[in-house]
Amino acid sequence: MVSDKVTAVTFATPVQELLPRVETRMHEIANTYHRDLHEALVHILASGGKRIRPVVNLLMGGALGAEVDRLVTSAAAIEMLHTATLVHDDLIDGSLLRRGMPTLNASWTPAKTVLTGDLIFSYAAVLAAETDSVRVMHLFADTLATIVNGEITQQFNSQGPASKEDYYRRIHAKTASLFEAAATAAAYLSPVDEDMIDAVRRYGYEIGMAFQIVDDVIDFAGNQDMVGKPIGSDLRQGLITLPALYYFEQNSEDISIAAAINGETLNGADLEKLVKAIRESNAIEESMKKAREFVERSLTFLHVLPDVVEKRALEELASYVVNRLR
Amino acid sequence: MVSDKVTAVTFATPVQELLPRVETRMHEIANTYHRDLHEALVHILASGGKRIRPVVNLLMGGALGAEVDRLVTSAAAIEMLHTATLVHDDLIDGSLLRRGMPTLNASWTPAKTVLTGDLIFSYAAVLAAETDSVRVMHLFADTLATIVNGEITQQFNSQGPASKEDYYRRIHAKTASLFEAAATAAAYLSPVDEDMIDAVRRYGYEIGMAFQIVDDVIDFAGNQDMVGKPIGSDLRQGLITLPALYYFEQNSEDISIAAAINGETLNGADLEKLVKAIRESNAIEESMKKAREFVERSLTFLHVLPDVVEKRALEELASYVVNRLR
Repeated sequence: MVSDKVTAVTFATPVQELLPRVETRMHEIANTYHRDLHEALVHILASGGKRIRPVVNLLMGGALGAEVDRLVTSAAAIEMLHTATLVHDDLIDGSLLRRGMPTLNASWTPAKTVLTGDLIFSYAAVLAAETDSVRVMHLFADTLATIVNGEITQQFNSQGPASKEDYYRRIHAKTASLFEAAATAAAYLSPVDEDMIDAVRRYGYEIGMAFQIVDDVIDFAGNQDMVGKPIGSDLRQGLITLPALYYFEQNSEDISIAAAINGETLNGADLEKLVKAIRESNAIEESMKKAREFVERSLTFLHVLPDVVEKRALEELASYVVNRLR
Repeated sequence: MVSDKVTAVTFATPVQELLPRVETRMHEIANTYHRDLHEALVHILASGGKRIRPVVNLLMGGALGAEVDRLVTSAAAIEMLHTATLVHDDLIDGSLLRRGMPTLNASWTPAKTVLTGDLIFSYAAVLAAETDSVRVMHLFADTLATIVNGEITQQFNSQGPASKEDYYRRIHAKTASLFEAAATAAAYLSPVDEDMIDAVRRYGYEIGMAFQIVDDVIDFAGNQDMVGKPIGSDLRQGLITLPALYYFEQNSEDISIAAAINGETLNGADLEKLVKAIRESNAIEESMKKAREFVERSLTFLHVLPDVVEKRALEELASYVVNRLR
């Protein structure tokens, strides 16, 4: 059972000493002789949030006996790849803030922002190469292709109404694929068999899916200060997420949600009303229930791990993913 | 001695049967279920010019006994990486045409163009991974970092007057690094020692440097139909290339060139006069002389190759690089 209590962030404790080494790897490689660019990279790396993907990677590698130096390098590669996608995403969305801090996009030309994203991609590739594992490099290339393909699907989106099937495909590409990669890379660097690799990969998939669903719930249900952007910002940008899909299932007579599902742009007043309606509906709880199902499933894949402190931390991390709302 | 005769393009003959396999590899990987995107990728790949980088890679691998399937994959990876950089370059420059054909940029939103470039980068990474060579993957990651760093230097350019030192550093990053990678990847996939790898790498470097110098000469000395853009377009964009640097050496009293070297923007009439003056000066011949020096040096590194048909083709290719002006 997923604990329903508020989970304190203690899951990173077993890798507390490795995390600064990941930061060091990232900063070493991002060293450059362009002063402005260096400051920007330091700023981007500093605004990087909780490092949950590297933590998944390090905990899994710790549980499976990965060689520590290569593991730290793979964790840095994972976070660098994540960072690169954020830089191009902010450019594409025209976002001026991320986690309450100004994006590159807010102060630089698009040319500089595109190239800085490219540079961070190249650093991720260099770090992946430095794991000296062909399988890790393959994984990186495939994961990058999956993430970008997902973004492109969204941009070229011209098919019919929004559906759960599309939603799940999109959040896999956008988020779960990198959690999968974080877990799988750790397994590739460890002396384990293919069955173990597969179980580990599926743990990453399940928590990644849960993570994005909870993000999408927070976008409706969180408070604005916490989220750092307006409530319902996805819907405002025409992006249909799970709460909106559940709301539509239960309120198909609401013409605003029907229009939004069909890709139409709502006027300001209708949009405000719809965001409020979704926020107050049980679509929020339905979505959270779905997220908890993913987390429950993720735990079943941890059974194959040895009974070590990292295993319990990975269980805690899974609970944290669905409890961080509060 | 570099031949001074017009060189017919026969250097690709020994790899004539492999080139279609490179195209197939590129198209296979670029297959996608988005119709618009697929058409765009086919268009981009079709407008790819002479495939000189894959030809270098294939000839070198042929000379050194590389395993053919992996060699073809590395050639596709090289050309894919080249293509990705062109897509982002066109976006950055705001170019609407390349080789007389419309760029993506001309018809798409920046978001789509950024992502399409990212997608092509990811395909290049997937192809590099499919060579199953850790060294080839390292080479790719490092080359990408070099190319992007070069572009960024240009964007963040805020140092003193233009210099030959900066120019050579820039064309190494922009062009020679990928010729180097094309040659070196072939050596990595062949049963050869480190001395051979080093000689092969230096051949790639020298012809790459010559190639870019000649490109920069053509920008002044070619005719507009052949170049597909206005004469002197680099200078018009504030980019100082070798002909301008030689012209400045010989005409330091010309206030227009002095201003351009210092990064100032010229008015239309001064710019036209300066382009014409450079075009008619012996800075063109001085630049070509320099390109021929690079080519002469490239030939010395071929001495270590076995006496096979591919070796003679690589010699021809080197001559072609400096004779394609006519």
